[in-house]
Amino acid sequence: MQRRSHHQRGLTLSELARRHDCQLRGEPGARVHRASSLAGADAGSVAFFLNQAYLNDLRSTGAGAVILSESHAAECPVAALITPDPYRVFAGVADELHMLLPPAAGIHADATVSADASVDGTCEVAAGARVAAGATLDRGVYIGPNATVGPQAHIGADSRILANSTVCEGVTIGKRCLVHPGAVLGSDGFGNAPDAGGRWRKIPQLGAVRLGDDVEIGANTTIDRGALEDTVIGDGVRLDNLIQIGHNVRIGEHTAMAAGCMIAGSAKIGRRCRIAGNVGVAGHIAICDDVVLLARTVVTRPIRKPGAYAGSMTPMEEVSSWRRNAARFKHLDALHKRVRRLERSS
Amino acid sequence: MQRRSHHQRGLTLSELARRHDCQLRGEPGARVHRASSLAGADAGSVAFFLNQAYLNDLRSTGAGAVILSESHAAECPVAALITPDPYRVFAGVADELHMLLPPAAGIHADATVSADASVDGTCEVAAGARVAAGATLDRGVYIGPNATVGPQAHIGADSRILANSTVCEGVTIGKRCLVHPGAVLGSDGFGNAPDAGGRWRKIPQLGAVRLGDDVEIGANTTIDRGALEDTVIGDGVRLDNLIQIGHNVRIGEHTAMAAGCMIAGSAKIGRRCRIAGNVGVAGHIAICDDVVLLARTVVTRPIRKPGAYAGSMTPMEEVSSWRRNAARFKHLDALHKRVRRLERSS
Amino acid sequence: MQRRSHHQRGLTLSELARRHDCQLRGEPGARVHRASSLAGADAGSVAFFLNQAYLNDLRSTGAGAVILSESHAAECPVAALITPDPYRVFAGVADELHMLLPPAAGIHADATVSADASVDGTCEVAAGARVAAGATLDRGVYIGPNATVGPQAHIGADSRILANSTVCEGVTIGKRCLVHPGAVLGSDGFGNAPDAGGRWRKIPQLGAVRLGDDVEIGANTTIDRGALEDTVIGDGVRLDNLIQIGHNVRIGEHTAMAAGCMIAGSAKIGRRCRIAGNVGVAGHIAICDDVVLLARTVVTRPIRKPGAYAGSMTPMEEVSSWRRNAARFKHLDALHKRVRRLERSS
Repeated sequence: MQRRSHHQRGLTLSELARRHDCQLRGEPGARVHRASSLAGADAGSVAFFLNQAYLNDLRSTGAGAVILSESHAAECPVAALITPDPYRVFAGVADELHMLLPPAAGIHADATVSADASVDGTCEVAAGARVAAGATLDRGVYIGPNATVGPQAHIGADSRILANSTVCEGVTIGKRCLVHPGAVLGSDGFGNAPDAGGRWRKIPQLGAVRLGDDVEIGANTTIDRGALEDTVIGDGVRLDNLIQIGHNVRIGEHTAMAAGCMIAGSAKIGRRCRIAGNVGVAGHIAICDDVVLLARTVVTRPIRKPGAYAGSMTPMEEVSSWRRNAARFKHLDALHKRVRRLERSS
Repeated sequence: MQRRSHHQRGLTLSELARRHDCQLRGEPGARVHRASSLAGADAGSVAFFLNQAYLNDLRSTGAGAVILSESHAAECPVAALITPDPYRVFAGVADELHMLLPPAAGIHADATVSADASVDGTCEVAAGARVAAGATLDRGVYIGPNATVGPQAHIGADSRILANSTVCEGVTIGKRCLVHPGAVLGSDGFGNAPDAGGRWRKIPQLGAVRLGDDVEIGANTTIDRGALEDTVIGDGVRLDNLIQIGHNVRIGEHTAMAAGCMIAGSAKIGRRCRIAGNVGVAGHIAICDDVVLLARTVVTRPIRKPGAYAGSMTPMEEVSSWRRNAARFKHLDALHKRVRRLERSS
Repeated sequence: MQRRSHHQRGLTLSELARRHDCQLRGEPGARVHRASSLAGADAGSVAFFLNQAYLNDLRSTGAGAVILSESHAAECPVAALITPDPYRVFAGVADELHMLLPPAAGIHADATVSADASVDGTCEVAAGARVAAGATLDRGVYIGPNATVGPQAHIGADSRILANSTVCEGVTIGKRCLVHPGAVLGSDGFGNAPDAGGRWRKIPQLGAVRLGDDVEIGANTTIDRGALEDTVIGDGVRLDNLIQIGHNVRIGEHTAMAAGCMIAGSAKIGRRCRIAGNVGVAGHIAICDDVVLLARTVVTRPIRKPGAYAGSMTPMEEVSSWRRNAARFKHLDALHKRVRRLERSS
């Protein structure tokens, strides 16, 4: 997404402190123009500090101001904007200093918009974008270059569908969503019935995909349409890149999922879950609200209790020792039995 | 893939029973117009029952008819279409009630078809599709919006190449194939020879990709061209989304593979295999016919005996206990040796 | 990438021997026209031999000549080009026999190039490619069909951006790079700060992506832009298909990574590393130069010593025995304690 590279006039520290409810230590009239890392900052930059690993960067920063918590303010060699929630305040400040460019209303001469599509006059449809018959784009929608919007799809106000992404027929997207390049929403689910000879008969995929409001979908992520009912992604969900969401999956509000997760058909994931990279969830499994899953976990049973779960990840070792340990895995059951025997005879 | 949303006139239960070799319990002249889930059905819908988990939905369904097996017919509160194979029969019925729209013959004004391509008059080439010189599209082919077909590629009759997918030069696709959005067929294989200084020299990838008939390729799946000979996907193969097929891989007829599998170069997979999500197969490995692989398995040795195999997946636990167990994995070989010592001394 | 299918005049074995520093056994004036596998070769082909598994193919090859090492020359039934490094020599020979077609200078009538882009007259911009304002294409660049190049992106000389790939705003690509179809360079990093209610606030992603020279990026691979500083891919790096590179990752020169790797934000990977398929690297982790990672390894701690590492992969077994062993994993810590108790009491 293109943003202004910096804020031309800049904002004063006192304005920032007031708007983001920070305590200011430093010159109220000083101005910052851009957000930077501690190490890359100059006097016109505002940075933030959160992670102890960057303490040396804090001590030597050349930033105009640093957003950080009270407990670290003493380490800050420059102006400080003090808040209990530095990361979130930084997000807001960075948004103000580097505003998203609004869509430039209009349909590019090299785009294709069906005469039977409904496109609000405030939308931007970029070169090479294709909007099919029956599709609806609400106000302020942006369709990026070479993105496609299928028949009867509906894109809610202020959503942005970036370059080369595919919104298939009948998919509905809420307001203020962001779909990154190469994402596919509404491909057929993987439904096949075998015949006696082992040949596959395709099960027609008749549902759609529905995204709530404020959803972000990562680059090259794929979300399959439902077989009969819809695949549903709740408000505020964040999906990273290269994730697969199977048909009829339901994901609750404000759940976030890191790259490479594979969610099989009809799984149901609760609200506010935090799912790390490369997690797998088996088909028809339900996961309750407020679950944390560590990287690589495979969920094959329902989770009914909020909490943090892990599995399928074992420590990295040098190959020689890993090889010995991994080989023993095949004898783990036998080993248990041998220990049981020893216990009985001792 | 766009289908008619429902069958306008509807089909009578007696027609369905006859055509799909079902036993009918109920009013022969009643008509159904659409396929639905048990829960979402109304009197104009036909649903199916297979999975015990949905028994309550069966008991309370409002469907016009349900396709199910003899053993569950007594539980069905509405008309029943009885068959030993409800899932496959449902697929056929759903296909009739929600027909795929045939391609609308013609080349869109915003498509680009090389004067040196051969495109049958019955094909549909959508807006933004690019068909290069020397490419051949047989009868009834559909090329979706912004899909690209490279030089000398050949697409067999009635195949559908959906939006934003890429068919590279020299790739051949059989009849009635379905390639989902964002799939890439024929990217270069990953062939690199290191020099003494650790720099990589690219190995030219001179083979192609050949798909048989009735193959389905999932969204954003990638299939690399062969280095010297071709990468070959057999008739009736089903690949889900986000799968990687390396150069010179051969996949036998009617094998199905779920999302996220990574098949390294020159692996050879047999016929009628069923491969679950996120399975990995090492390079140059051969797997025989009729093998089932559970999710996450990594295959580093040949499989010569049909059967079901698994590995690399360990149970999900709460993080605290997982952490203790995973840490012990590094001492598994040592533990075996300790047990051996105890056994000797006991 | 399209190459000439073969070399029309052919090259003599003496030319090849001289140019690639091989010892020739055979007729110096014999000509070869194409590179082939041992099994698929005819008298006009040159093949290579490396892997013992193909010894029977060597013994029965119909090739005009075979590139191989001294130690196998005696097994070669035809002319031999002898070198200590057959694979790399073969790469060079194949390149000469099947030359990459140079870009055909010009902008296709169905491409869109902003009046404010700078495109060298030697570049080829294919049908449907979109080049935005402020983008720069240096000499000899190829932009494939339906690929997009965003504002202020810079593509170095002789780089090739293939079909349907996306280069986002501000991304810089060095010389002689190759970006395969569907790759996405410069999507937003996954940066989200939670508020008290569990809602996510997006962290603006203000950095870019920088690729060095001679980098190859696989099909449908995604590389996120940095949050504040850039994501950096060093010279000569090779990334296979379906890889995710998070924001602010840095990858050192000549590192190669196989398909499906997931590299989390701010990880730093050294030079000349060789990373197998489906490896995961946690955020903010540093890996030194010359590290080898076996398939599926998850790196959650820094690696400071060159060497080969593995983890998270356990042997494949038949499902029945795997199930027993995997179930025991949950009791591995308890088992250690039981063994400790036995040792104490013995």
